[in-house]
Amino acid sequence: MTSTGSANDPREEIFPELTRDVIARMKDGESKRLREIMSLVVSHVHAIVREAKITHDEWWQAIDFLTRAGKMCSDSRQEFILLSDILGISMLVDAIDHVGGPGLSESTVLGPFYAGQQRELASGESILLREEEADPLEMRGRVTDSEGRPIANALVEVWQTAPNQLYDVQDKDQPEGHLRGSFRSDAAGTFRFRTILPVSYPIPDDGPAGQLLAAMGRHPFRPAHIHFMISAPGYRTLVTHLFLDGDEYLGSDAVFGVKPSLVIRPRLMDGINTVEYDFGLADERESTRVQVEELRRQRR
Amino acid sequence: MTSTGSANDPREEIFPELTRDVIARMKDGESKRLREIMSLVVSHVHAIVREAKITHDEWWQAIDFLTRAGKMCSDSRQEFILLSDILGISMLVDAIDHVGGPGLSESTVLGPFYAGQQRELASGESILLREEEADPLEMRGRVTDSEGRPIANALVEVWQTAPNQLYDVQDKDQPEGHLRGSFRSDAAGTFRFRTILPVSYPIPDDGPAGQLLAAMGRHPFRPAHIHFMISAPGYRTLVTHLFLDGDEYLGSDAVFGVKPSLVIRPRLMDGINTVEYDFGLADERESTRVQVEELRRQRR
Repeated sequence: MTSTGSANDPREEIFPELTRDVIARMKDGESKRLREIMSLVVSHVHAIVREAKITHDEWWQAIDFLTRAGKMCSDSRQEFILLSDILGISMLVDAIDHVGGPGLSESTVLGPFYAGQQRELASGESILLREEEADPLEMRGRVTDSEGRPIANALVEVWQTAPNQLYDVQDKDQPEGHLRGSFRSDAAGTFRFRTILPVSYPIPDDGPAGQLLAAMGRHPFRPAHIHFMISAPGYRTLVTHLFLDGDEYLGSDAVFGVKPSLVIRPRLMDGINTVEYDFGLADERESTRVQVEELRRQRR
Repeated sequence: MTSTGSANDPREEIFPELTRDVIARMKDGESKRLREIMSLVVSHVHAIVREAKITHDEWWQAIDFLTRAGKMCSDSRQEFILLSDILGISMLVDAIDHVGGPGLSESTVLGPFYAGQQRELASGESILLREEEADPLEMRGRVTDSEGRPIANALVEVWQTAPNQLYDVQDKDQPEGHLRGSFRSDAAGTFRFRTILPVSYPIPDDGPAGQLLAAMGRHPFRPAHIHFMISAPGYRTLVTHLFLDGDEYLGSDAVFGVKPSLVIRPRLMDGINTVEYDFGLADERESTRVQVEELRRQRR
């Protein structure tokens, strides 16, 4: 068993045999991994209840909160991802499960608005399906491996909100697929598309996650960004954003997603705002090697 | 700040500034209590993620699990209460928030099948709304304070499953309110009603909680019991069950609800199975005094 946190503090020890009993009864569980995770879940959730001395009323509020969050989920709304995001859980999972290193791009949260693979567009095409009153942006870059060698035929998926701060899936008035698109890198690893400058926006805050944010004294805004998901056979899929420099929410992103290496500053080229950004993907075998070394280090 | 568990273990320390940042951003939260609880939630949930090294895939399984649990909730189904019950969380909250002591009855989980206050029946009436093929049971008892003094006019609410292992709210074929009822204690604190011997039954296991139970290698059964909720002005409401002695699941209740003092053995009296059981309720003021003493003890 891994540490059970402050459940070992005798001052806090209420009904310790209950926690032991719940964990012991998993002995016939279907897998070692499930037993490991659920033992940690039980230990830590029991520790929360003990350390906070949760009352029946508070417990009921928690049950009701989770129930309302579940009811709010739909094809276009994922309240549990929002919750995970605003509590920093998504970024922590990403920090743990992402392979970083020289030549590799940093990752950030997926967020709840990925809508599946979209139509493939030719290099240089726009991801807008209707006109928008916004500054145009030309986005160019390369997909490479950790050594800077081009990765050809990588799938570059992008999505962002409209200037009204909503994604197409949140807004019946937008054409489906508006401000979304898929591109393929060419033999030199390059890709290119047209879009508009992104805007900051509030995450959906009319549900339980928004109520919790408000109760925690926080605003719901995310700094302006464009989502990227870049995948290629033999490489680990990169999920990330590019953030606009100067945004007032860069220091207080509601989902803790900002990393300095992901902040971009468009330059005017031929009269149009242009960003050039290269994405470095981790080799799957390299990822495995790094993970094996990390495991060896821990077991020493 | 309370202990953050093994997040203090340097070997496990991945992205520690994230956890600190999430907690620090609550500084303008609406109440000290909310900040206290949410700080513990963030610390411990981050600790689960770090200690288990949760992957993106596992994180997604957790999001999907919670979403499916939320979708399953309805007027007659509360999947999050089931989850809380099968992980021992409900019993732990009860242990923390319940005031025990000499002369006071032990409490146990409410469960998800309380259906609100039912019709009031006269002393000695049956809670059956249709005939059932089952052994009749006469239930008698007194409601008292911790000194054994009668509490008159206490509300005694009871509910149980039919012999088919289902509560009325789970079973369209049962009349609404079948095997449920409310009684009032008389001047001597006594109450009396007729019912049938309860049976063991599986908790609803066709949803995410049931899948988790199976994955943990556990059965879904609860030993035979009758639910009681007893309330009277000036006293703490008692939520408890009485369990039938000899039940094969007494040692492995799926929700960890059994306490030895709550196990009953019916006796044949005038040819009918009869149970006599007295319930001792905690005085509200006494409860407060005990809680204050406990707080003082901890602060020493």
